[in-house]
Amino acid sequence: MTKKVVLVVEYNGSEYKGWQAQKFGVPSVQENLEKALAIIANHPVKVVCAGRTDSGVHASAQVVHFETDVERSERAWTIGVNTYLPTDITVVAASSVSDDFHARFSALSRRYRYVIYSSAFCPAILAKGVTWTYKTLDVAAMEAAAKVFLGTHDFSSFRAIGCQANTPIRTILNFDVQQLGQYIVLDVRANAFLHHMIRNFAGVLMSIGAGEKPVSWAKQTLEAKDRTKGGITAPPTGLYFVDAQYPDVFNVPKRPLGPHFLPYVDEPVYELPS
Amino acid sequence: MTKKVVLVVEYNGSEYKGWQAQKFGVPSVQENLEKALAIIANHPVKVVCAGRTDSGVHASAQVVHFETDVERSERAWTIGVNTYLPTDITVVAASSVSDDFHARFSALSRRYRYVIYSSAFCPAILAKGVTWTYKTLDVAAMEAAAKVFLGTHDFSSFRAIGCQANTPIRTILNFDVQQLGQYIVLDVRANAFLHHMIRNFAGVLMSIGAGEKPVSWAKQTLEAKDRTKGGITAPPTGLYFVDAQYPDVFNVPKRPLGPHFLPYVDEPVYELPS
Repeated sequence: MTKKVVLVVEYNGSEYKGWQAQKFGVPSVQENLEKALAIIANHPVKVVCAGRTDSGVHASAQVVHFETDVERSERAWTIGVNTYLPTDITVVAASSVSDDFHARFSALSRRYRYVIYSSAFCPAILAKGVTWTYKTLDVAAMEAAAKVFLGTHDFSSFRAIGCQANTPIRTILNFDVQQLGQYIVLDVRANAFLHHMIRNFAGVLMSIGAGEKPVSWAKQTLEAKDRTKGGITAPPTGLYFVDAQYPDVFNVPKRPLGPHFLPYVDEPVYELPS
Repeated sequence: MTKKVVLVVEYNGSEYKGWQAQKFGVPSVQENLEKALAIIANHPVKVVCAGRTDSGVHASAQVVHFETDVERSERAWTIGVNTYLPTDITVVAASSVSDDFHARFSALSRRYRYVIYSSAFCPAILAKGVTWTYKTLDVAAMEAAAKVFLGTHDFSSFRAIGCQANTPIRTILNFDVQQLGQYIVLDVRANAFLHHMIRNFAGVLMSIGAGEKPVSWAKQTLEAKDRTKGGITAPPTGLYFVDAQYPDVFNVPKRPLGPHFLPYVDEPVYELPS
């Protein structure tokens, strides 16, 4: 009988052309994971994730499901699978899940963190794990600007030209900008995201933080509903998929909010979107 | 006229066979730095560092000096040189320095941090930038054990078999074990270190932290003066050269204590060793 399994996966996306499996020879997280799972399952496996990430984007807690005909322990789906994964992809939790669970369609929200390092020189340590700027950023201005994005809007100004979504309407549930340790972290939760949406938010907020644009530019950009009126698309290096929220009934394993190098933040329990 | 320049260099050592230039085709931090400096100087450059690091070991603030016949700005020795360096090596400060300065022989002390990540699964993020253990570690036990190493001792038990130092006697000036964010960090300052000394300390302290050995084993190991009575040599991945201390007269540039992903720690001003 076919069973469903849900996994939580951490990956360093630096060496991958994104989450999604592509043509032969293009390294993807999905392909590596499917190959490793197939060895443990002893049959081909197709996985579905909560939020596909682009080339160079990371995840501290990507959520994935797959179907299998075999019975294996949680230990086999974690430690066993990890044996066949490269060191930059790790399954950190596994659990059986009811048949009506779907990593993408059951998700109520997705959450990303975008990690900015402002310093005179480009860091050698974590060079591909943060977004560097030599500019000094005004966190309060960025935070004020970010609040404009809260709620349901047409985000056409923040949508990549090639974005394939049916609609540019999305609902931003939380958008915080915080100084955490030596980093400035954008922390965004939405029902779903458009292609490049967070990196386009980051482009606008970093220009505002650097004082090149006023705080009001965030609202102007949003209201323009035109990508060409937006800012630059900030680099993928600082972007982390950190959480997907599901109805409690599915009992999807939870992890402490990552990436693990960020100081722990005591945070409110988010309401489920209605 | 020949002038001396002092640099502070940050590097991610994951892709290098250590600091020291070796035979053709073996990647080293030194060789990359010398090549980049030679382009800016327009003559061959030889550099000397405060503390040579092994394969896979990192530095947030390695101190380096070199001699040059040319006059260049600090900007040229930093931003200019960085243009010719790979992304995992960055010059973060440069300054002219008096002729009697020597990055190695003028150093009063060196300081390292060893970053341990205790977690059920090996991290995909910062996989080569921390030392992972699935074991739960008792920080208080490790801290108590570490204090045994303070002061001047014969450290033969913590010295690699191939160590070329004239004497196994070293003076440990500080040795703290702290929980910093999600990491356990060994923070050690000494007049100088033997080959593999900190990784051998880490091997003993991690066994004590895991409860496999009692706190008293640190003292026993020290007093045995015999490497074969020591613990394992812990991996290089978590080791960072973070500071070298010089007489104030040299005005060597100082940086905030790294690596930058660790939470900032307010710390005492250390006395110069007498």
